[in-house]
Amino acid sequence: MKDMDDVTAMMAGIGARAKAAAAELAFAPAEAKTAALNAAADAVWAARAEIIAANARDLEFGRAKGLSAAMMDRLMLDEGRIEGIVAGLRAVAAQADPVGAVIAEWDMPSGLHIRRVRTPLGVVGVIYESRPNVTADAGALCLKAGNAVILRGGSESFHSSTAIHACLVAGLKAAGLPEDAIQLVPTRDRAAVAEMLKMTDFIDVIVPRGGKGLVGLVQREARVPVFAHLEGIVHVYVDKSADPEKARKVVLNAKTRRTGICGAAECLLIDRAIAGTLGAQLVADLVAAGVRVHADATLAQVPGTVPATEEDWGREYLDMDIAARVVDGVDAAIAHIRRYGSNHTDAILAEDDATAERFFARLDSAILMRNASTQFADGGEFGMGAEIGIATGKMHARGPVGAEQLTSFKYLVTGDGATRG
Amino acid sequence: MKDMDDVTAMMAGIGARAKAAAAELAFAPAEAKTAALNAAADAVWAARAEIIAANARDLEFGRAKGLSAAMMDRLMLDEGRIEGIVAGLRAVAAQADPVGAVIAEWDMPSGLHIRRVRTPLGVVGVIYESRPNVTADAGALCLKAGNAVILRGGSESFHSSTAIHACLVAGLKAAGLPEDAIQLVPTRDRAAVAEMLKMTDFIDVIVPRGGKGLVGLVQREARVPVFAHLEGIVHVYVDKSADPEKARKVVLNAKTRRTGICGAAECLLIDRAIAGTLGAQLVADLVAAGVRVHADATLAQVPGTVPATEEDWGREYLDMDIAARVVDGVDAAIAHIRRYGSNHTDAILAEDDATAERFFARLDSAILMRNASTQFADGGEFGMGAEIGIATGKMHARGPVGAEQLTSFKYLVTGDGATRG
Repeated sequence: MKDMDDVTAMMAGIGARAKAAAAELAFAPAEAKTAALNAAADAVWAARAEIIAANARDLEFGRAKGLSAAMMDRLMLDEGRIEGIVAGLRAVAAQADPVGAVIAEWDMPSGLHIRRVRTPLGVVGVIYESRPNVTADAGALCLKAGNAVILRGGSESFHSSTAIHACLVAGLKAAGLPEDAIQLVPTRDRAAVAEMLKMTDFIDVIVPRGGKGLVGLVQREARVPVFAHLEGIVHVYVDKSADPEKARKVVLNAKTRRTGICGAAECLLIDRAIAGTLGAQLVADLVAAGVRVHADATLAQVPGTVPATEEDWGREYLDMDIAARVVDGVDAAIAHIRRYGSNHTDAILAEDDATAERFFARLDSAILMRNASTQFADGGEFGMGAEIGIATGKMHARGPVGAEQLTSFKYLVTGDGATRG
Repeated sequence: MKDMDDVTAMMAGIGARAKAAAAELAFAPAEAKTAALNAAADAVWAARAEIIAANARDLEFGRAKGLSAAMMDRLMLDEGRIEGIVAGLRAVAAQADPVGAVIAEWDMPSGLHIRRVRTPLGVVGVIYESRPNVTADAGALCLKAGNAVILRGGSESFHSSTAIHACLVAGLKAAGLPEDAIQLVPTRDRAAVAEMLKMTDFIDVIVPRGGKGLVGLVQREARVPVFAHLEGIVHVYVDKSADPEKARKVVLNAKTRRTGICGAAECLLIDRAIAGTLGAQLVADLVAAGVRVHADATLAQVPGTVPATEEDWGREYLDMDIAARVVDGVDAAIAHIRRYGSNHTDAILAEDDATAERFFARLDSAILMRNASTQFADGGEFGMGAEIGIATGKMHARGPVGAEQLTSFKYLVTGDGATRG
């Protein structure tokens, strides 16, 4: 109980300092934020030996804890990965500053001139797991958008994140910005996460970065708004009007380029009219590429497939597995996706414009694609520079969340003594 | 307990029907929505005798309940007010349809063409008090934005709202749109409100319309996002660079045009440099207009004022009262507003551009005004047509909330067989 009270008090202090820093950051010049990010990049590179040493402690802890090979790989930092962190910081530094941008302006007959101008959201809380680079990426993106940020990294990456965070603070100092603009929760105590989720007085939005367990917990428990996606149950529908060559290329890429990312295809829907031709070919291509295809009765006739069960629809494999099913045209595909999808990314392969438009109009995924691989569901591939994550909610932010979506707006209204009649 | 379970089941049914209607409305043609709103306007006018009869029952109930004269006035409908409702419906019908509008589009080197397109939010819940016209206004605005809406009116206006709602449903029917697109909760049981606030599976956003008691309850209890403002603690700062004639006109209008609206001025801040000259004049003007000026020690020297106490700072009078205080220039005004304001609307009177820009940059109210009356804080005066309310939160919607802010967006991405490398 004593410890719990300590964590509560500590988090309230962090929250209050973040809020005070946010009030200053809101009107910090773009140049100062850019300078801070470039100075942080310099500091990370200069401190690479210390960061790698800190990371070695985390790796040792991870080995002792018996982390999986995949988790150990996510955790590991070497000089190449630190180069990546530095390049990420410089890329965000070079991005346009969203704060103060005029989104719209117009005149009214009353003589008022009205401008809608971007402002920071305030304080962002980021809760993440093992990847230590999120410390730099998320910290940088929040700063660019003029937000203070409270970072809560995974306990596995505690020392690595602490070392990287020190470099971010050095950057803030060098640019004369408040050091509390980027804070890292200085404890592994899980009670800190529970505190963050209910700090509505201090945190404007929480971004969870990690697996379904973490995101689900945050979505269930948070009293603060959340930008996130729980799952990427990505569907690819191949219409009878699809171009076979495009379809073969895109389906293979959507499934196999990287299987562990949220934009990887998880379910292939085949128009009945082409089930025995292009459909069978696509399934055979996937089997040949080493994918376990969980196929419905029709497609299971293709050698090398395994029979699908009801659990395969709406399943996120994040692996070399895909569900495959025959549907009666685009409307049945839409119905399947509405029932089993997760509003993340869904694609159609079709040359027929009316069919593609129907798919675009009647589905409401954050990202809908035509004749393109779902692996493009990424802020960088959208031209947003870095992203803090991909959101599937409908409020405020949706799809890849870059600096611009970490802002709000205000109205600036000027008159010349205008009074209302 | 039995009743409570009944309400829970009833509300779940309403929610499920709203969600189903929203899925259809999302791709309803603009013409159908316009036709529904115009047909509803016709129906309201045709049913004016029935509506006035229903309203008479509400007025009788209100008299028996001992409602105040102001509340009875808000509740009352006559042919003139019904004309206003009809005009409001036709005005929303005539507005541009936000759904499907392309907010941005761009090409990527990968060959992708990306469009960001407006989509409805889904299901809106509106909880309001005595004004029966909100039934028509809120219903119309939600429909325009392609949202299904669940209306929960005050118990005082139950019969009036029911009669108006029947006309909205007639409009939907006439246009071939789902009747469940606009539902009115058919009970006065307050348990229905508690249900709405936690219906996260069915309701995407709640808009409370009413006094501080209602809005505060909704903000505290809702698990669903809320668009609202709790208070309009509107400040007007008069800088030493202010034009005296503009200042006198604007201050009087900001306070006295209508005192009961959220954009009415509640606190006058006077630059010390002009306290004895223009400041004293402004206070004298207000006193002469019949305003009770709660003045600090300096301004209390003006005859007819009353001394301010600490409780007067940050107070929303909504009446012929204003607090008045001398401050040391724009920075002290900013500090006062940050401490006591409510992020609704705040204004500066200043001819000096640098001073006005400082005020605009360092405050983060939803609406900031220069040399204009705060009474302009209104969707109509902003050129948005109708508004469902004014929001002071930073997420998604802010300032006057019109049809456009009742939408979300999705990304439509097209390629020509693009795969990611």
